[in-house]
Amino acid sequence: MSAVDLLAAVDDVGRDRRRGGWSRHLGDDAETTLREWFTTEAARRGLAVETDTNTNLWAWWGDPEAGDAVVTGSHLDSVPGGGAYDGPLGVASGLAALDLLRARGHRPTRPIAVAVFAEEEGGRFGVPCLGSRLLTGALDPDRARALRDADGVTLAEVYARRGHDPARLGHDPARLGRLARFVELHIEQGRALAPQDLAIGVGSTIVAHGRWRLSFTGRADHAGTTELADRRDPMLPAAETVLAARRAMARDPQARATVGRVHARPGGTNIVPSAVEVWLDARGPAPQALVEDVVAAARAAAGAEGCRVEVTTDSVSPAVRLDAGLADTLTRVAAATVPEVVRLATGAGHDAGVLAAHLPTGMLHVRNPTGTSHAPDEHAEDDDVATGVRVLADVLADLTR
Amino acid sequence: MSAVDLLAAVDDVGRDRRRGGWSRHLGDDAETTLREWFTTEAARRGLAVETDTNTNLWAWWGDPEAGDAVVTGSHLDSVPGGGAYDGPLGVASGLAALDLLRARGHRPTRPIAVAVFAEEEGGRFGVPCLGSRLLTGALDPDRARALRDADGVTLAEVYARRGHDPARLGHDPARLGRLARFVELHIEQGRALAPQDLAIGVGSTIVAHGRWRLSFTGRADHAGTTELADRRDPMLPAAETVLAARRAMARDPQARATVGRVHARPGGTNIVPSAVEVWLDARGPAPQALVEDVVAAARAAAGAEGCRVEVTTDSVSPAVRLDAGLADTLTRVAAATVPEVVRLATGAGHDAGVLAAHLPTGMLHVRNPTGTSHAPDEHAEDDDVATGVRVLADVLADLTR
Repeated sequence: MSAVDLLAAVDDVGRDRRRGGWSRHLGDDAETTLREWFTTEAARRGLAVETDTNTNLWAWWGDPEAGDAVVTGSHLDSVPGGGAYDGPLGVASGLAALDLLRARGHRPTRPIAVAVFAEEEGGRFGVPCLGSRLLTGALDPDRARALRDADGVTLAEVYARRGHDPARLGHDPARLGRLARFVELHIEQGRALAPQDLAIGVGSTIVAHGRWRLSFTGRADHAGTTELADRRDPMLPAAETVLAARRAMARDPQARATVGRVHARPGGTNIVPSAVEVWLDARGPAPQALVEDVVAAARAAAGAEGCRVEVTTDSVSPAVRLDAGLADTLTRVAAATVPEVVRLATGAGHDAGVLAAHLPTGMLHVRNPTGTSHAPDEHAEDDDVATGVRVLADVLADLTR
Repeated sequence: MSAVDLLAAVDDVGRDRRRGGWSRHLGDDAETTLREWFTTEAARRGLAVETDTNTNLWAWWGDPEAGDAVVTGSHLDSVPGGGAYDGPLGVASGLAALDLLRARGHRPTRPIAVAVFAEEEGGRFGVPCLGSRLLTGALDPDRARALRDADGVTLAEVYARRGHDPARLGHDPARLGRLARFVELHIEQGRALAPQDLAIGVGSTIVAHGRWRLSFTGRADHAGTTELADRRDPMLPAAETVLAARRAMARDPQARATVGRVHARPGGTNIVPSAVEVWLDARGPAPQALVEDVVAAARAAAGAEGCRVEVTTDSVSPAVRLDAGLADTLTRVAAATVPEVVRLATGAGHDAGVLAAHLPTGMLHVRNPTGTSHAPDEHAEDDDVATGVRVLADVLADLTR
C-alpha cells in the first residue's frame, strides 16, 4: 500500500469542524484511533509492535533485542487545527518504505523499526517532543506527569485513564542504546524546494527554539464601573508583549517570535480580566536573548499597570546539527533518484532534533508547494510523496545491507 | 427566611474551581439548579410560578392577570468566575421582602411579582439582558435563536434541549402591559456608598454601554519557519486594539473601554494564528464615538499586517434615566430607615435599564465595601442586605397600598 493510500485511510480522523483542519492530541479519540490504525497496519505486515514506557510505538522488522537498529518514523499528533502531513507522512512513508524493501526482496542485516513518538507538537500539554524527550531523559518525568492541559487535567491522569501507568514514564537508556540510526521523513516546512523544482531535500540543521509562558496577574473587576486609576488589567501588558515579540523578531532576519496562544481569565466581555497568559514561541540563532528582551518589555508593561508577571520556560531546544556522515549517505543515496540534492536548515522542531544528541540522526524533507505548515493547507503532491518513500527505502536498504 | 440565608443555600451552586468564584450561565447545570431553587422557594411561599415565553420566571403574589403589577427581582446567571451577589441578591431580597410584608400582615391592592430574568450577563451567548430584551422586543428573536456560545452551540439548540420551544421566544406586549412598576435591588458596583457610611443608595441613571466584537483574520502558518514578510498574523492588530481601547478610555474620565475576552484560532503555541477575536466593552457618555476611534486603530493595524477585520455590534444600550417619580418614592421610603439617601449613577447594565423604556423603573443599590464587581470578592455585609430587604419591603408596601 502506498503512503498516499495509507494517509487517505485516516484522512477523516480528528477533523476539526470548529477550527478547520485536523486536531489530534495525546489521549484524545483521534490520536487513539491513529495509534490503533498504526498497530493494525504494522501487524498486517507481520511487524512486532511495542509500546515503550513513554507510549512511543515501535513496529519491528527483525529482533529489537539485537541492537544496532535503524529507525525511521515520526509522530501522529498534530497542532490544533493543523494539516494532515506534519507527522503522519513520516509514519506512513516508513511503513510504505518497508513494503517496498520487502517487495524488492531486501534482507536487512540489522533490525529496522518504524517509530511513532508521542505528542511531538505539544498541542495538548505544551511541551513539544514529549515522547522523545522522556525517552532520552531530556524531560524530567515528574515534571511531565504534572503537566496540565487547558482543562486542568494532568498528563498523569490522561495516562492513568488510558491504562498506562504514569510511574513508568522516563529515561529509557537500554532502549536508546539499541538504536544505531534515526532517519525522519517530514513534509517541508517553508518553501525552499519548490522554486528549485526539487521533490526532496536533506536536513542539515534544526534552529534553536523554545517555548515560554508569560502569566500576567491583575485584578478582576467590573468593566463598566472600574475607573482607570483602579484598574490592574493584565490584558494591557499581554498586548505590549505581543508587540515586543514582533519588534524583537524584526531586529534579526533569522529570528522568529510568535504569540499564537493567549488565554484570558475569567474571560467575560464585561470583566476586567484577573489573569492573562501569553505563550511565546521563539527561534533563531539566540532565542534566549530574544526572550530576555521580550520579558523586559513585559515586566515594564506589567509594572506600569500594577500587574505581576511570572515567566515559565516550557521547553528549550538548542540548535542541532544533524549527523554529517548520515546526511552524506542520504545525499548519495538520493542522488540515484533525483537530479540534485540540497541541504535544508529547518526552523521547526522535531523528534530527530532530540534524538540527535544520542545517535546519528538525519532528515528527509518532501516538497511543500506553498510552504504552508501547521495549517490545513499544508500539502505534498502524491508524486513527491512516492519519491520520498523510494529514497527512504533506498536509505534504509543502504544502512542495513 | 432572610435573604442571607436564601443565598447561603445556593452558595455551592456553580462554583468555578478553574476560574475561582461562580459561573452560572443560561442552560448549564448551575443555572438550572438555581431556577429550580427559585421555583421551590416561591412554591413554598404559595406564590404561583410562571415561565414566560422567554424563560424569565415570575413568582406571583396575587392574580397576574389583574394587571397594574408591581415587580421586583433580578437575575440568577453570573459572569464567568463572578461573584455570588450580582443578580441573586435581588432575587433573594425580593422573596425575603415578601416574607416581611406577609409577616407584617400587609394586604397588597395590586399583584406583586418577583421576577428572574434570563442571561442578564450575556456570559454564554454574548448579548446581555437577553430575557428582558426579548420580552420588550428590543432583541429580534431570529437573531437570538442564532446566537452561538463558545462551543458553537446555538441558543435555539440549548432551549430545544431543555424542552423550551425556541419558536416561542420574542416580544410579549401582553405581559409587559400588565406591569406597572419595576424595582430592582442590586449590589453596588463601584464604591460610592462605603466612604459615605451609607448602607443603600437609590439609582438615578445607567450609563450608555455596548459590546462590540472585532474579528481579525490572517493566515495560519508555522511559527518557526514563516518569515516576517510572509506573516499575516492577526495577533498583532488584536494587541494594537487592546492598547487603542486603553488610550480611548484615558481621554475621558467618564469613559470605560475593556477587552476582557480574546480568542485565538487555532490557538497553538507553534502556529501563527489564522484568526483572533477581541471583545470590546465600551461605556460612557459616547461609547459609539469611542468605539469608532478604536475600530479606526484596529483597521489601520490590520491593514499594516495584511489582515482583515470585521466588526460586529453585539449589543448597544443607550443611557437610561430611571423614573424620577419612582426614585423620589424610593428616596422618601428609604429615609424612614437610613439617615441619608443618595442617588447613584451606575456604569453597569441591568434588566431595569431595558424595562425602563416601557414602565417606571427604579433601582436600590446595597453597599459593596470594596467596590469589587464581576469577581469572586464582590461582597455585601449581612446587615446591609437586611437593610436593603427592609427598604425594598417598605417600597413594595408603599406601591401596593
